[in-house]
Amino acid sequence: MTLTVYLAGEIHSAWRAEVMAGCTDLDITFTAPVTDHDASDDCGVAIMGAESANFWHDHKGAKLNAIRTRLAISQADIVVVRFGEKYKQWNAAFDAGQAAALGKSLIVMHQPEHQHALKEIDAAALAVVETAGQVANILRYTLTGTLPR
Amino acid sequence: MTLTVYLAGEIHSAWRAEVMAGCTDLDITFTAPVTDHDASDDCGVAIMGAESANFWHDHKGAKLNAIRTRLAISQADIVVVRFGEKYKQWNAAFDAGQAAALGKSLIVMHQPEHQHALKEIDAAALAVVETAGQVANILRYTLTGTLPR
Amino acid sequence: MTLTVYLAGEIHSAWRAEVMAGCTDLDITFTAPVTDHDASDDCGVAIMGAESANFWHDHKGAKLNAIRTRLAISQADIVVVRFGEKYKQWNAAFDAGQAAALGKSLIVMHQPEHQHALKEIDAAALAVVETAGQVANILRYTLTGTLPR
Amino acid sequence: MTLTVYLAGEIHSAWRAEVMAGCTDLDITFTAPVTDHDASDDCGVAIMGAESANFWHDHKGAKLNAIRTRLAISQADIVVVRFGEKYKQWNAAFDAGQAAALGKSLIVMHQPEHQHALKEIDAAALAVVETAGQVANILRYTLTGTLPR
Amino acid sequence: MTLTVYLAGEIHSAWRAEVMAGCTDLDITFTAPVTDHDASDDCGVAIMGAESANFWHDHKGAKLNAIRTRLAISQADIVVVRFGEKYKQWNAAFDAGQAAALGKSLIVMHQPEHQHALKEIDAAALAVVETAGQVANILRYTLTGTLPR
Amino acid sequence: MTLTVYLAGEIHSAWRAEVMAGCTDLDITFTAPVTDHDASDDCGVAIMGAESANFWHDHKGAKLNAIRTRLAISQADIVVVRFGEKYKQWNAAFDAGQAAALGKSLIVMHQPEHQHALKEIDAAALAVVETAGQVANILRYTLTGTLPR
Amino acid sequence: MTLTVYLAGEIHSAWRAEVMAGCTDLDITFTAPVTDHDASDDCGVAIMGAESANFWHDHKGAKLNAIRTRLAISQADIVVVRFGEKYKQWNAAFDAGQAAALGKSLIVMHQPEHQHALKEIDAAALAVVETAGQVANILRYTLTGTLPR
Amino acid sequence: MTLTVYLAGEIHSAWRAEVMAGCTDLDITFTAPVTDHDASDDCGVAIMGAESANFWHDHKGAKLNAIRTRLAISQADIVVVRFGEKYKQWNAAFDAGQAAALGKSLIVMHQPEHQHALKEIDAAALAVVETAGQVANILRYTLTGTLPR
Repeated sequence: MTLTVYLAGEIHSAWRAEVMAGCTDLDITFTAPVTDHDASDDCGVAIMGAESANFWHDHKGAKLNAIRTRLAISQADIVVVRFGEKYKQWNAAFDAGQAAALGKSLIVMHQPEHQHALKEIDAAALAVVETAGQVANILRYTLTGTLPR
Repeated sequence: MTLTVYLAGEIHSAWRAEVMAGCTDLDITFTAPVTDHDASDDCGVAIMGAESANFWHDHKGAKLNAIRTRLAISQADIVVVRFGEKYKQWNAAFDAGQAAALGKSLIVMHQPEHQHALKEIDAAALAVVETAGQVANILRYTLTGTLPR
Repeated sequence: MTLTVYLAGEIHSAWRAEVMAGCTDLDITFTAPVTDHDASDDCGVAIMGAESANFWHDHKGAKLNAIRTRLAISQADIVVVRFGEKYKQWNAAFDAGQAAALGKSLIVMHQPEHQHALKEIDAAALAVVETAGQVANILRYTLTGTLPR
Repeated sequence: MTLTVYLAGEIHSAWRAEVMAGCTDLDITFTAPVTDHDASDDCGVAIMGAESANFWHDHKGAKLNAIRTRLAISQADIVVVRFGEKYKQWNAAFDAGQAAALGKSLIVMHQPEHQHALKEIDAAALAVVETAGQVANILRYTLTGTLPR
Repeated sequence: MTLTVYLAGEIHSAWRAEVMAGCTDLDITFTAPVTDHDASDDCGVAIMGAESANFWHDHKGAKLNAIRTRLAISQADIVVVRFGEKYKQWNAAFDAGQAAALGKSLIVMHQPEHQHALKEIDAAALAVVETAGQVANILRYTLTGTLPR
Repeated sequence: MTLTVYLAGEIHSAWRAEVMAGCTDLDITFTAPVTDHDASDDCGVAIMGAESANFWHDHKGAKLNAIRTRLAISQADIVVVRFGEKYKQWNAAFDAGQAAALGKSLIVMHQPEHQHALKEIDAAALAVVETAGQVANILRYTLTGTLPR
Repeated sequence: MTLTVYLAGEIHSAWRAEVMAGCTDLDITFTAPVTDHDASDDCGVAIMGAESANFWHDHKGAKLNAIRTRLAISQADIVVVRFGEKYKQWNAAFDAGQAAALGKSLIVMHQPEHQHALKEIDAAALAVVETAGQVANILRYTLTGTLPR
Repeated sequence: MTLTVYLAGEIHSAWRAEVMAGCTDLDITFTAPVTDHDASDDCGVAIMGAESANFWHDHKGAKLNAIRTRLAISQADIVVVRFGEKYKQWNAAFDAGQAAALGKSLIVMHQPEHQHALKEIDAAALAVVETAGQVANILRYTLTGTLPR
């Protein structure tokens, strides 16, 4: 058994690297959105031409990014969604909704302070955790049946 | 042609009533989540017994509410998601994600100030509007081909 | 919104009648397996001819019953599975597995003593209850948003 | 042609090893649930934190195990479900139900004494056997067309 | 519970009328292919223009008939396939294959002399019978749980 | 048996009315796109606000129209696509592609001069005709088995 | 692009070897049912124990063979069905029906004398041929775009 | 992450080679229809025998080509459809419709003069471009997150 794991959500901390660092000996393919904030924001107009209105500037970029994110979600066995401390992060919740509707195993990672606001998403998840280490432990257990000592 | 329309998102303003008021002569079945905030928060423990931990209190309730919301989304031809002025509203984005993954026609309603934060969800929508009247106009046009004068 | 609810599992108590008695004013279509134990056991050979081996006697009957149960599960919005006090009840768990795989909202009803043995099925459910009254309360809340006083 | 075969059910005998021993020369990928009973029971709290109530202790663990079992069932070409001599084994029947609903080829393995109680599951199976050797023979025949001498 | 039942196969005997005569008090919608042999053979060229080659004459007709048969199979809860005494009847077996692949409950009706030649189709069926009366009995049992006296 | 038939394609002739006129005694629900050319072109900006660029003007309108056309195609049992004498009509071919991929029964209506250019679409159709009368004859035959005299 | 091709139908001539001989330089995985007639007939009882009734003898075998044939059909990109000169061959037509319902590209191979009896199956096919060489030519063209000289 | 990209549409310019030339260092599998115009037109009769009517000549060929094009579309992660300067190109729009209905990420490539006529197809796309270089830039960004300098 191998795993393909999509790491969705927050792009302003090192949590993806921490998850991967805890799984270097496991047969897992990790995927992620483009995590370069500026590239992600401007990709549409950079390739397909400038727009004067913010809405269409963002629209072109968001659709272009969707090519990658939809594909990655559809190919994933497990989708991990990290909610960070800042921003609205509606795209993280949107990714979680897609994952849930497609029947993907969902793992949600967030601090306790967001527990009430995330209750619907947590309720659709198979695991709710606070740290990247816990995500790695879950992936290890799923693949090998081994628990942390 | 008839329509079943799920009105998701904000529960603290009269937008659902306004949409429906604009469609009284149309053959539309409107559905919605439970919009009584207290009932929605406490339904799980009220029926299935109290929990000492907030997480499980909310978990029981969120799962119970999911019986209604999942069914309504799956039965809808169109899902309208309203993002309001307050709260995290991650459940609204989560509903939008489910609707998008299930191939539902998605209409998103929000103020311009949230445009950048909602760009991924707007990009998955077939219409982005600001007012309940615009939602009603879209439903009328979809059913009858008639535009507002 | 209306509901179609399949009442699976135990056939030796009055729990189905109790659920239905609590929902007489609600727009719900209830379905169930054939609950006449003898008819259910012998239907295959009664219609299609006797078998000398128990295995084929049961096989003919079980397949015939599957016409009804598969259809009812596939048409249900909600599947309620009741585990009683007696018998192996593997068919109840089998129905729960089918319901879960088809994405049906699952409600499990059992006594606390079976909690550990049913943990995998409870984990796939949106609600776990002990009484028929709780099932009725959930169906009422799902349709009307009203909680028991 | 290669096969992916999920070996579900009883974890207290050597039947999985016996099946695999009979297929060492065949191109089969075998998968299984975590068969360490203690790890399987405690995985949820071991990784995500202790719970005071048995229900939530088990709930966390059962959901965590579901990440592996759902994935394995969905990836399997054939699901073999072994019912042993002890315990309720409702999770085995639950797995069989999932496999049946997903259209997987189902092989059921049990002693004759359970024949009547398992008739619904047997009726959904493409083969019903008593021994691990018979399972191996079926897998060999499926891949190579060769029957036991 | 209501049933939609597609009666496929032989068109040269009264078996459809016999099945329906046994179910007049039941809530069943029966569908069937066009049973006028000449109309069925010539419909394509009658509506869309003559063809000089038999292959295209038949091709036009077979595709036109497929509009009805595919729709009826896809809408059916139960597909009954009757194999008669004469002709190749490959279209009956073709309908059975479609029904099986779509997960429809399949009932096969044929005389014992065809048992070996039909074993693959019988193996995919939930019931194998010889008479129209048995089909009616099965439909009655499925809907009402009542067995013939 | 009833039919839902989507009439796609050309909006500048009376072919839809002719098809319907030939089916007044049949149990058919006909659906169609908005056939008011100006409303169809301008609906997006009329409801959601003007755009300076033609591309976004058209984009808003085309997405809005897609709410109706996607729904109608998904609900149809049969999709009839009429290619007329003028314009590029790429949207007609696009509708045909959607219908084919969704497994809808496809009827294509066009003049012989377009035969070569439409060969891929004709090859996916169950019937290819030239006149509205032929479409009506096909619908009549599908529902009643009656051929034109 | 590679192809997986299931060769269904007649097992009493060398047509499979001829198709494969014409494709030795192409990247194609060929699959087939068990073509040893005796093994195919007796596999069920050979592995799972004798039956006194012919029906159950055949039933056990046909279900066992279905493990292989269903899997092969579901994994195939193209299903070729050969109808030979002898026997009822209902299983060939049944395989064709499954392939059609699953949206597989279907190629039918038969002599002209069976044209009328096979018209429904031919109408669901993308190619109808008479010889193994034509099948090989189609597979070569599909993969490489090269036509026979 | 790797990509499979189907390059549909115009076969009379070098655009496919240009896209591929811009992606030589990326892990992308490109697929395409048969681009030899004569082979594509005559393949049916060349392999399966001549037809006197143009309609059936084209019909045989179009169905044969569909084996390749349907498979390629179904296997693609991204479908790029190029509309050129000449011909009706209804098959390009038909491919776009299939891709959209199957949920593939769609990229449309055309000159500004066709903008209005292609608005429905553009509205279903995640990117609309004019040049092969832009297609290559999108594929590069999707796989690597790198924008053109």
